[in-house]
Amino acid sequence: MYFASDNAGPVHPNVMAALEAANQNYAMPYGADRINEEVVKRIRAMFDAPEAAVYLVATGTAANSIALATLSNPWETVFCSPMAHIQEDECNAPEFYMGGGKLTLVPAIDAKMTPDALRKSITAEEVRGVHGPQRGPISITQVTERGTVYSVGEIKALTAVAKEYDLPVHLDGARFTNALVSLGCSPAEMTWKAGVDAVSFGGTKNGLMGVEAVIFFDPKHAWEFELRRKRGAHLFSKHRYLSAQMMAYLANDLWVELATSANTNAARLASGLRQCPDVRFDFHPDANIVFASFPRSAHKRLHDAGAIYYVWEGTLEGDDPDEMLTARMVCDWSISDDYIDRFVALVKG
Amino acid sequence: MYFASDNAGPVHPNVMAALEAANQNYAMPYGADRINEEVVKRIRAMFDAPEAAVYLVATGTAANSIALATLSNPWETVFCSPMAHIQEDECNAPEFYMGGGKLTLVPAIDAKMTPDALRKSITAEEVRGVHGPQRGPISITQVTERGTVYSVGEIKALTAVAKEYDLPVHLDGARFTNALVSLGCSPAEMTWKAGVDAVSFGGTKNGLMGVEAVIFFDPKHAWEFELRRKRGAHLFSKHRYLSAQMMAYLANDLWVELATSANTNAARLASGLRQCPDVRFDFHPDANIVFASFPRSAHKRLHDAGAIYYVWEGTLEGDDPDEMLTARMVCDWSISDDYIDRFVALVKG
Amino acid sequence: MYFASDNAGPVHPNVMAALEAANQNYAMPYGADRINEEVVKRIRAMFDAPEAAVYLVATGTAANSIALATLSNPWETVFCSPMAHIQEDECNAPEFYMGGGKLTLVPAIDAKMTPDALRKSITAEEVRGVHGPQRGPISITQVTERGTVYSVGEIKALTAVAKEYDLPVHLDGARFTNALVSLGCSPAEMTWKAGVDAVSFGGTKNGLMGVEAVIFFDPKHAWEFELRRKRGAHLFSKHRYLSAQMMAYLANDLWVELATSANTNAARLASGLRQCPDVRFDFHPDANIVFASFPRSAHKRLHDAGAIYYVWEGTLEGDDPDEMLTARMVCDWSISDDYIDRFVALVKG
Amino acid sequence: MYFASDNAGPVHPNVMAALEAANQNYAMPYGADRINEEVVKRIRAMFDAPEAAVYLVATGTAANSIALATLSNPWETVFCSPMAHIQEDECNAPEFYMGGGKLTLVPAIDAKMTPDALRKSITAEEVRGVHGPQRGPISITQVTERGTVYSVGEIKALTAVAKEYDLPVHLDGARFTNALVSLGCSPAEMTWKAGVDAVSFGGTKNGLMGVEAVIFFDPKHAWEFELRRKRGAHLFSKHRYLSAQMMAYLANDLWVELATSANTNAARLASGLRQCPDVRFDFHPDANIVFASFPRSAHKRLHDAGAIYYVWEGTLEGDDPDEMLTARMVCDWSISDDYIDRFVALVKG
Repeated sequence: MYFASDNAGPVHPNVMAALEAANQNYAMPYGADRINEEVVKRIRAMFDAPEAAVYLVATGTAANSIALATLSNPWETVFCSPMAHIQEDECNAPEFYMGGGKLTLVPAIDAKMTPDALRKSITAEEVRGVHGPQRGPISITQVTERGTVYSVGEIKALTAVAKEYDLPVHLDGARFTNALVSLGCSPAEMTWKAGVDAVSFGGTKNGLMGVEAVIFFDPKHAWEFELRRKRGAHLFSKHRYLSAQMMAYLANDLWVELATSANTNAARLASGLRQCPDVRFDFHPDANIVFASFPRSAHKRLHDAGAIYYVWEGTLEGDDPDEMLTARMVCDWSISDDYIDRFVALVKG
Repeated sequence: MYFASDNAGPVHPNVMAALEAANQNYAMPYGADRINEEVVKRIRAMFDAPEAAVYLVATGTAANSIALATLSNPWETVFCSPMAHIQEDECNAPEFYMGGGKLTLVPAIDAKMTPDALRKSITAEEVRGVHGPQRGPISITQVTERGTVYSVGEIKALTAVAKEYDLPVHLDGARFTNALVSLGCSPAEMTWKAGVDAVSFGGTKNGLMGVEAVIFFDPKHAWEFELRRKRGAHLFSKHRYLSAQMMAYLANDLWVELATSANTNAARLASGLRQCPDVRFDFHPDANIVFASFPRSAHKRLHDAGAIYYVWEGTLEGDDPDEMLTARMVCDWSISDDYIDRFVALVKG
Repeated sequence: MYFASDNAGPVHPNVMAALEAANQNYAMPYGADRINEEVVKRIRAMFDAPEAAVYLVATGTAANSIALATLSNPWETVFCSPMAHIQEDECNAPEFYMGGGKLTLVPAIDAKMTPDALRKSITAEEVRGVHGPQRGPISITQVTERGTVYSVGEIKALTAVAKEYDLPVHLDGARFTNALVSLGCSPAEMTWKAGVDAVSFGGTKNGLMGVEAVIFFDPKHAWEFELRRKRGAHLFSKHRYLSAQMMAYLANDLWVELATSANTNAARLASGLRQCPDVRFDFHPDANIVFASFPRSAHKRLHDAGAIYYVWEGTLEGDDPDEMLTARMVCDWSISDDYIDRFVALVKG
Repeated sequence: MYFASDNAGPVHPNVMAALEAANQNYAMPYGADRINEEVVKRIRAMFDAPEAAVYLVATGTAANSIALATLSNPWETVFCSPMAHIQEDECNAPEFYMGGGKLTLVPAIDAKMTPDALRKSITAEEVRGVHGPQRGPISITQVTERGTVYSVGEIKALTAVAKEYDLPVHLDGARFTNALVSLGCSPAEMTWKAGVDAVSFGGTKNGLMGVEAVIFFDPKHAWEFELRRKRGAHLFSKHRYLSAQMMAYLANDLWVELATSANTNAARLASGLRQCPDVRFDFHPDANIVFASFPRSAHKRLHDAGAIYYVWEGTLEGDDPDEMLTARMVCDWSISDDYIDRFVALVKG
């Protein structure tokens, strides 16, 4: 019963098969493989963005950090939510890749920045001339780190503020497809049509071994990104194995199928938990992440049964069986209904 | 009527005389001058810290950034108040000198971090292993950016929290002596005896042309600081002119005399403003900075008379003569009673 | 006929099988997988280094840059040969990871630094106190970028110079096993017993998809490396797929088998070329890289037949059919005898 | 007898007087002082460059590092001579300010890069696509670190190569005026008319306390430089004291007078040494630096008499009185004829 993260699950068999297939031939290294050409074409078509610059890297932190460094200068500050992955979980990677930049934390409701808070944060900078940090990119995480999903309208409202101040917008889409499925919109609608300039298009959490695409809708960023990727040591010599994963992901809408499956799993989990007395939802589970609080006694039952998930607030140790502890439960595409139902049953007690 | 900053005023005549005196001879460059030896001795004696490493730089930002970089690693975060100079007014210099580090903003009351808020900020980091930023130095500004002064007890309470987590403490003392005079304690009492590890000991805002000392009470930091100073381009070839300024500053307690004068000036200003109807103090003016709000009509009178200070909140333009606008007024040692009284009279109307 | 690089060839079937096997289960992310534990144990045993810190990354540039950053300070200079990969082919990645460090190019014979040249380079630094760069690590590439191999004695002679000045030694072993097989010694003999402190232990060029181990014989470097890896964005969430590759590589001495095969292929190629008139060897092909010069006419025959390799010096275009152009030919484990013989036949004409 | 460096001598009395004068008034900080406006106007006029961006910093390393960072990207390499100050004497400051850049050492004759060597160095880069460092600025030191001076024709020949590859050219003019006087040309002729894009215009070594101007002939670099200066901690609050020094320097051609004096002093020294048997000149003393070799016995006489200069090659200790040791002797404007003659007499023996 692995609900700890969507990076604990397996790679989809189609992806494994694509790796096998890619292994039958020699290929030019460093992104000059033919499969990569196909990937670029496919992503441009999917996003209805024929000019887009598209690159592959192997980790989400690489996608975010190199994209943000490409969109910014070291004397700028990136606007993001206080729980943004780039703030909380990348060990200062964005500051490192930016060459000594800063992040400004924009107050968020349900882990989503609001346009008003964003405007307030932006206008608080660049009022001291050369002295303060200069305004830099906005970074939006979609699905958010608390499992909520920005509506297209909410994204547009944020990018409208950014555009007012001529600032670029980055979308950290580690769970891009889970959000897309949740919203039922097209990739273009959730990104450039909504004012987004660059996307970290995640694959690793959705059935790949380790590939993320970075997409710039304006190709002027292409060469700088390539240089930053190389000197960040993220240009793979055997690049075709990244390309092959991504190609399998895009083929036959596997990406959508897997995210749909993950979201459905989370919905089943949430629905089950809703039936339990003493369960309180901390955030609305819009995609494949569920934050819910329930009594310590239920946590202990789960723990004893070997369920794996994060106790996000509070600690298992403690005498009071009724104290509410918060759980973060993430469903990947592969979690079985059976496991979900067992998990719920254990909460129910 | 210059109340904009204590960096608008003149250099004290003794300091000018010392520069003239230093100019009579040849001297070895890069800190090997004899006056520097005297400076180091004197500062060690003043701080009752015979082992301290003492260095001169020319700007406060250099003192802060190089000191913090020496005390930290690039994967760490520095804990400071949201209005800290290092956060608001150094264009990401600390992040640059740290090699891509971070600042964590600790909620403050009257511009002072509280021990509870500090502990909460510290314990919120390093709970995600290698993923989050690691805990780094605490940086305390004394006098704070809002003109308040930490008591020795308040400093001790913060450093006690820092020591619990084995974190070093830096004191940004751009207005060190104004605070010292305000508290009536000794340099040792306000620093290492209170748990401070490194000090930016300001001179520029208190009658020098451009010199700050950086003091590490543990000399193990010495060589690293020297290398960081050099590669930051802050090692002066004609270093003796920094030494001479600092020596004149320390001689005959000029530093104390000047800060006393600045604080007395601010007290006179505050006392005068207290007599005015419609003046509200935004922070307690503990040293030489006064934050007070008064009606737009008073601001207009000041402006028309050529008074120079910052309108901190609100804007001079506006129809309502009674709207309260906040002023930041800084007194340096040289402001005359006459100017202060004229300023007050203009507020009074 | 792919002789362009050992990164053009396929992944060994055992490695593919190990990936499949790893895909059958859930696993904790970020290196907490069980296979990683096995990898660490196995590498420690192989190197007879029970205390060693062992980490996996996915690219050789990551291994080199993060290892060197961990061994150095930003004010230092790394001593390496003028044709070192870290100098020529990493787009300033070492300087970036070091936080603004430097490389000092030590004159080399047959792409190998000599002890005398190294001593001269070292003693030319740190003679200007704080002004010049400080002495940092020595980085030795084994197999060198020109296909030669340092003998164990040659490594010892270099590390002896390094130890004289108390400098750490890094071995860039992108082709570690090819060198090992060439020398017929043990991993310990080629590394820590010869005075090496840290190793980039390559797998990607020798049959893996994309995995290199970084080994520090002194575990004091462990935590710093982990933090630098994370903030460099090189800590994989689905780390088990790196572990699985490396485990398959080490099992049943596959690593040695593959390198032996690659070296044997290169020897066959060299031997064939030696039979051709008008072929001159530019460097002694000690492992799996052959540098040889032959007439343009031969290059044209190869080119027309679709052979892929680098024309290292000179250019295919040109009228003189007899002009000697230098080829770099790299053999991976998978190159067939047939291809090698066809290649030689084309050179022969 | 201070011949160690031109940073050992005094500040010119006119400059001291200007500091006194600037001290009579309040002034806006951070470069908003009126004297700075005058400085900018004057420098633009002097260089016949009405659009130029002009900034003041306090150290030569700051001028060089921030100028080069402004002209380059972190993935580029700066072309300079192997004895360039930026390579040898700035503790990796350029690499730090560039954010992890590189320097490529161009072979030099008499400390001057040659156009052929420069072209060879440039064409050796950017032949490996994204893998190698990209071509960046050329940095020329004028007066060179060995006391020679590039003719205007020699500068033009280098900048012509740079322009071929569309690379910007920086002139490290720590001893700008000594070169100018030596050549007898105008500032424009030695800089932008000869193809130079940015200049570190030194004052510190020529009678100032600590001021260098940075001049960009294309003002598009202005704002980036301002931000880099600030975050490098090189923007002075009491900036007027930098402005005042520079203004006094430029007034009445003091800058030319001082450099003329320094060069004349060096010529007198060289002329005297030329009379001595056993003196060999290592470089032609074109400006105010003399490199000459003479027997240890002469060095010992100088040393016993308290003469201060660098023994550049060889060491004073040693038995052989006839062994030739190389001296570096630098004359500033203030060295008296008497001292020079005494120095020469001691060499003569």
